[in-house]
Amino acid sequence: MTEQTTPGALMRAEIAEQPERWLELGATPQGVAEAARLVRERGVNAVMLAARGTSDHAAIYGQYLIQTQLGIPAHLAAPSMATVYHRDVTSPSTLVVVLSQSGQSPDLVETVRSARRSGSPTIAITNDPSSPLATGVDVHIPICAGAERSVAATKSYTGELLALYLWVQELLGTSPDTVTSRLVHVARAGRAVHERSQPLARSIAVELGDADRALVLGRGYGLATAREAALKLTETCAVAASGWSAADAKHGPLAQVVEGTPVFCLRGATAGRESVDMLAPDLRARGARVWSTRVEPDVDASAAPGRDFTIPSDVPDELVPLLEIIPFQLVALELSLARGLDPDRPRGLTKVTLTS
Amino acid sequence: MTEQTTPGALMRAEIAEQPERWLELGATPQGVAEAARLVRERGVNAVMLAARGTSDHAAIYGQYLIQTQLGIPAHLAAPSMATVYHRDVTSPSTLVVVLSQSGQSPDLVETVRSARRSGSPTIAITNDPSSPLATGVDVHIPICAGAERSVAATKSYTGELLALYLWVQELLGTSPDTVTSRLVHVARAGRAVHERSQPLARSIAVELGDADRALVLGRGYGLATAREAALKLTETCAVAASGWSAADAKHGPLAQVVEGTPVFCLRGATAGRESVDMLAPDLRARGARVWSTRVEPDVDASAAPGRDFTIPSDVPDELVPLLEIIPFQLVALELSLARGLDPDRPRGLTKVTLTS
Repeated sequence: MTEQTTPGALMRAEIAEQPERWLELGATPQGVAEAARLVRERGVNAVMLAARGTSDHAAIYGQYLIQTQLGIPAHLAAPSMATVYHRDVTSPSTLVVVLSQSGQSPDLVETVRSARRSGSPTIAITNDPSSPLATGVDVHIPICAGAERSVAATKSYTGELLALYLWVQELLGTSPDTVTSRLVHVARAGRAVHERSQPLARSIAVELGDADRALVLGRGYGLATAREAALKLTETCAVAASGWSAADAKHGPLAQVVEGTPVFCLRGATAGRESVDMLAPDLRARGARVWSTRVEPDVDASAAPGRDFTIPSDVPDELVPLLEIIPFQLVALELSLARGLDPDRPRGLTKVTLTS
Repeated sequence: MTEQTTPGALMRAEIAEQPERWLELGATPQGVAEAARLVRERGVNAVMLAARGTSDHAAIYGQYLIQTQLGIPAHLAAPSMATVYHRDVTSPSTLVVVLSQSGQSPDLVETVRSARRSGSPTIAITNDPSSPLATGVDVHIPICAGAERSVAATKSYTGELLALYLWVQELLGTSPDTVTSRLVHVARAGRAVHERSQPLARSIAVELGDADRALVLGRGYGLATAREAALKLTETCAVAASGWSAADAKHGPLAQVVEGTPVFCLRGATAGRESVDMLAPDLRARGARVWSTRVEPDVDASAAPGRDFTIPSDVPDELVPLLEIIPFQLVALELSLARGLDPDRPRGLTKVTLTS
């Protein structure tokens, strides 16, 4: 892309348009009914999710969503089985779901080929219906996010989350009216979170100045958000950020928290919140600078920002990840700009990554 | 533990004794034959591995080993399914393998309970035959590493790798004589790698002085080593280190590599080496300080250290992880001491971590 734009203008616009994209995807979901039928007809009893980068964090969300809502095992693939070791490891009762914004990852194309050799049904969730992944599977679910032009993925991430959510709702037999009303609600909440988070995101960008590292801690669905928030900070700001399950943090990762280290605690979902909160004394003892997400009955966009990003309290845990990532997309954007970088074009990264 | 010892003395001794521990475990493997029988009798067609921290990296090794050698799917568990969401997600044909040095992790105890409710056969690999995990499963495989007293786990990690290897060899029907001769060979190689790596580990510790971050890059089996090497650096030296699949690195994580960032490339195994090598131009362009592991026909302990750790070239990929982690255990030890820290007792970490 040689076109000149204001640094961060693409990422800023793509973050802002997310709630509208969710409504569009929900209004005319394609492939969702076929994907649910595929699961029923083929007697699926396990799901393997394969993805890279940001989409791999959507796959983590899928792992939790499928297991908690459908009660069947769902796991993340090791794509090198197909590309490096040439082993077909799935079975006809294992559904293979691949996620990719571009739909082009060669290692995922190989994973789909391997799945088909094994007789596994296959679903792709992508942003390009004409891509090799979209056309190479049994059912394609388009995320309809529109062209994503910033290298840092934002709206395609929440689009993938929502596609997974819609498909699982179809499998659960949730009525279309119920799904629609939930989407209207979460889109409204998304706009509020977006508006409310901006002052705090800017103030964090100032305060973090030259912070070299950051930790993001979550649990359950929050692990997907933790990993994605950390990746946004790394790719746009060159911060050595990492996202951890709160349960794993005490097994060593917390040792990198020293005086002043920024730590973001994800407290938006009910399940797992206690696990994150249990780390508070340790974080205090290490002198971490802590910011959190938390829920609030009425998110007031006009109130002065504290140290917490607020999320409406009436959103179910399964939809919290759509909202809880927004503040960190904004922090990454603002911190990148504050450092004189362009989050739309991080040095040495490309929009479509072709690893095999 | 109130006993006073020289800083790092425990970790140093425990790193050094690994090859002897491997020979001991191989000489009288307990539980391995029963664990193989369990798999056959119960018609296992998938494996779920559950662990935390260092043991989770042994689980990654298990994931690759089981899939490549046995051709059945093997995946990492989300222990919060049992502890946070209270969902039983396995089936009678899914084997659940839990790994834990102490055998005490409450979340793994819950995962085993969930597995048993679902009718899944269960195996525990631990260092304590009297622990809740060891006594709560169908078959226990003790790693016989002896008491591990340094908080930074070393010999229990390679003990877990070897227990997994021995169990898979039993399932493959490899003759005891063949296994024994491979172990004698890998133990000899382990002693050579240990001796040969020390000068370079010390020189890296000097050169890294105040490095705040580090990346470790591997592929396939190397992913387990990358994650474990990074965790050692984090827990003993407070470095913001992270381990990545070489295929994932270009999806964003590489952005944290700036001028002078230490990067360790794992080139010990044949499969996946090309994938790591493909990152070299990018690492050069970013100004990384790169060290690698590489294979060499004759590891000469007397040669002056270059910038590569050498591993004997006649070790099969499946056993390379036992050797390839040793240089990084030594780097963590030496860097920690160079910084005036005690790797045996990292601040705020405990040997037995009780998260649920």
